[in-house]
Amino acid sequence: MIIAVDASGGDYAPHEIVKGAARAAVEYNVPVALVGNQNILARLVEKYEKKSNLRIVNAPQIITCGEQPVQALKSKPRSSISVGINMVKEGKASAFVSAGSTGAVLAASYMMLGRLPGIQRPALATVIALNPEHPFVIIDAGANADCIPAYLVQFALMGSIFTANHLGIEEPRVALLNNGSEEGKGNRLIKESYQAIKNCPDIQFTGNIEPQELLANQADVVVTDGFTGNIVLKTLEGFGEIFGKNAGLQQSHQIPGELQGSALVNYARVLFLTRRADYKEFGGACLLGLDGNIVVAHGRSKAKAIKSAIHLAIRAVDLEMVSSIKKSVEKVGPDTVSG
Amino acid sequence: MIIAVDASGGDYAPHEIVKGAARAAVEYNVPVALVGNQNILARLVEKYEKKSNLRIVNAPQIITCGEQPVQALKSKPRSSISVGINMVKEGKASAFVSAGSTGAVLAASYMMLGRLPGIQRPALATVIALNPEHPFVIIDAGANADCIPAYLVQFALMGSIFTANHLGIEEPRVALLNNGSEEGKGNRLIKESYQAIKNCPDIQFTGNIEPQELLANQADVVVTDGFTGNIVLKTLEGFGEIFGKNAGLQQSHQIPGELQGSALVNYARVLFLTRRADYKEFGGACLLGLDGNIVVAHGRSKAKAIKSAIHLAIRAVDLEMVSSIKKSVEKVGPDTVSG
Repeated sequence: MIIAVDASGGDYAPHEIVKGAARAAVEYNVPVALVGNQNILARLVEKYEKKSNLRIVNAPQIITCGEQPVQALKSKPRSSISVGINMVKEGKASAFVSAGSTGAVLAASYMMLGRLPGIQRPALATVIALNPEHPFVIIDAGANADCIPAYLVQFALMGSIFTANHLGIEEPRVALLNNGSEEGKGNRLIKESYQAIKNCPDIQFTGNIEPQELLANQADVVVTDGFTGNIVLKTLEGFGEIFGKNAGLQQSHQIPGELQGSALVNYARVLFLTRRADYKEFGGACLLGLDGNIVVAHGRSKAKAIKSAIHLAIRAVDLEMVSSIKKSVEKVGPDTVSG
Repeated sequence: MIIAVDASGGDYAPHEIVKGAARAAVEYNVPVALVGNQNILARLVEKYEKKSNLRIVNAPQIITCGEQPVQALKSKPRSSISVGINMVKEGKASAFVSAGSTGAVLAASYMMLGRLPGIQRPALATVIALNPEHPFVIIDAGANADCIPAYLVQFALMGSIFTANHLGIEEPRVALLNNGSEEGKGNRLIKESYQAIKNCPDIQFTGNIEPQELLANQADVVVTDGFTGNIVLKTLEGFGEIFGKNAGLQQSHQIPGELQGSALVNYARVLFLTRRADYKEFGGACLLGLDGNIVVAHGRSKAKAIKSAIHLAIRAVDLEMVSSIKKSVEKVGPDTVSG
């Protein structure tokens, strides 16, 4: 197994990416291929003692987040994103991890790897572990801003397989993110998706879930369109940040010494939650439904977040996520999942 | 001025409603009409010493949240919602406050009060004061699950007027809630709404705002469809609750005695934020665009939240919100605001 990592993508590239990759390579004992400008990377890699697990793959071009994805991919064939995904396509890497332009990663993945048979739209699945005893998966976390009910049925199915494999939950409970709990609530997309998911075999559908119940262990897979899913994640992120800042956790993640007794316990709990609300702990999102393993990390990822994202990629490879999804869609049949 | 209050609406009706109304009547020195079962209410009101400002208006029927709104309104003409909104229509009350079925309140308001000329869809506006130095207004907070760009332009306009009057902000900055900051990001609705709002005079449009930036004082009015707006509010609510619970703030809102120094300050800040994330502090949402003042309170409102909602209703009356919106829409012209 080799994990390819986009060394040019994200706000803190290349330094933090290389740092995170170096740590992951040691900790998980897996070779990591850093995809980016080889001259710059060669100098950076020199810093690390145990660099035997790090390789460099030259990709001198960089696609920025401001660029129109498809256009950028055409004009920059030697970008880190194109080169990295091509490694997956050609079997030279088992997975590709990027904190770069999500739009460009999605577009390149669709074009170069292709969708699995029967899948209409690949989607991003991410684990929310704010309540560590009851983590859940949210899908779509941001790949498809505009959806139809048939997409959401596929998200439910892919999310179930991802959750069963990754979190080890047999027959995961699937709920639809909605602003009301009763059947018949929500916007047109959600009302229609409710009926479509309800009628799909192989999905343990439990109905709607409201956002305020997300941490109450009512669902293992939360299905939503990519716009709403991304909005919810970013709301959590902003809230976690503001809590962290106000609790004085930004500078140091230490518990103040003067805290005692129950106040200490309470403070530690808030600290814990604040850190878990942090995107660095999300560990990136798996792009499901493609013929290859792609992990999208947050644009603001530092070393720790990159290491988490690489771990997620390793899990996806180990658990044979691609073939599991492929088998499951084949079993249910394209007619069912396409609504 | 008389404020009519739905004494039968909400999870804690009628006790907490009456309690909140009694407090508001004294504190704001305004007569409050309790709309509900007169036998029950007569007994409850007896408890309050200063009851001179409380009146009872009989409405023996109750519409529950599970009922289909339009059907329920037809079959229960003497419901607290119908009777209360009729008081506003007939000028017997200056405003109506309800923690009951939002769907039924919306439907009854549309049917009985009617929309202001040029307004296509009334919308719910609510103040988020998590950052107390920079409160902002979110519109639509949940009235319209399915929207078209023309609605969002009107939300932007009504939100501007509400914010200018209620928060005293001249030329409030209006932003569109989106999952990306750049123009061209988002789903189809948001992309098209961006262009429509940009072209509308009388709106100080500042572009997109991402949820993680909501507390960063970048906008005074945040425009969104009612589905997304409601999802964001409920995400904040759930997060605030879980933080409160883990910080041990649920049982008592007291700061533990053993806290000292900077830990005390930090703890107090978290406490403060947690309380502000609580819906009880939101003070309800104003339904804008109708020919009458309607305030929708959270279904889980206790006395304090009802008191806040009544305060919001008083503000709307004092600030002549209805005629301000009417004038503004007339000035801009229906052609502009209907896109």
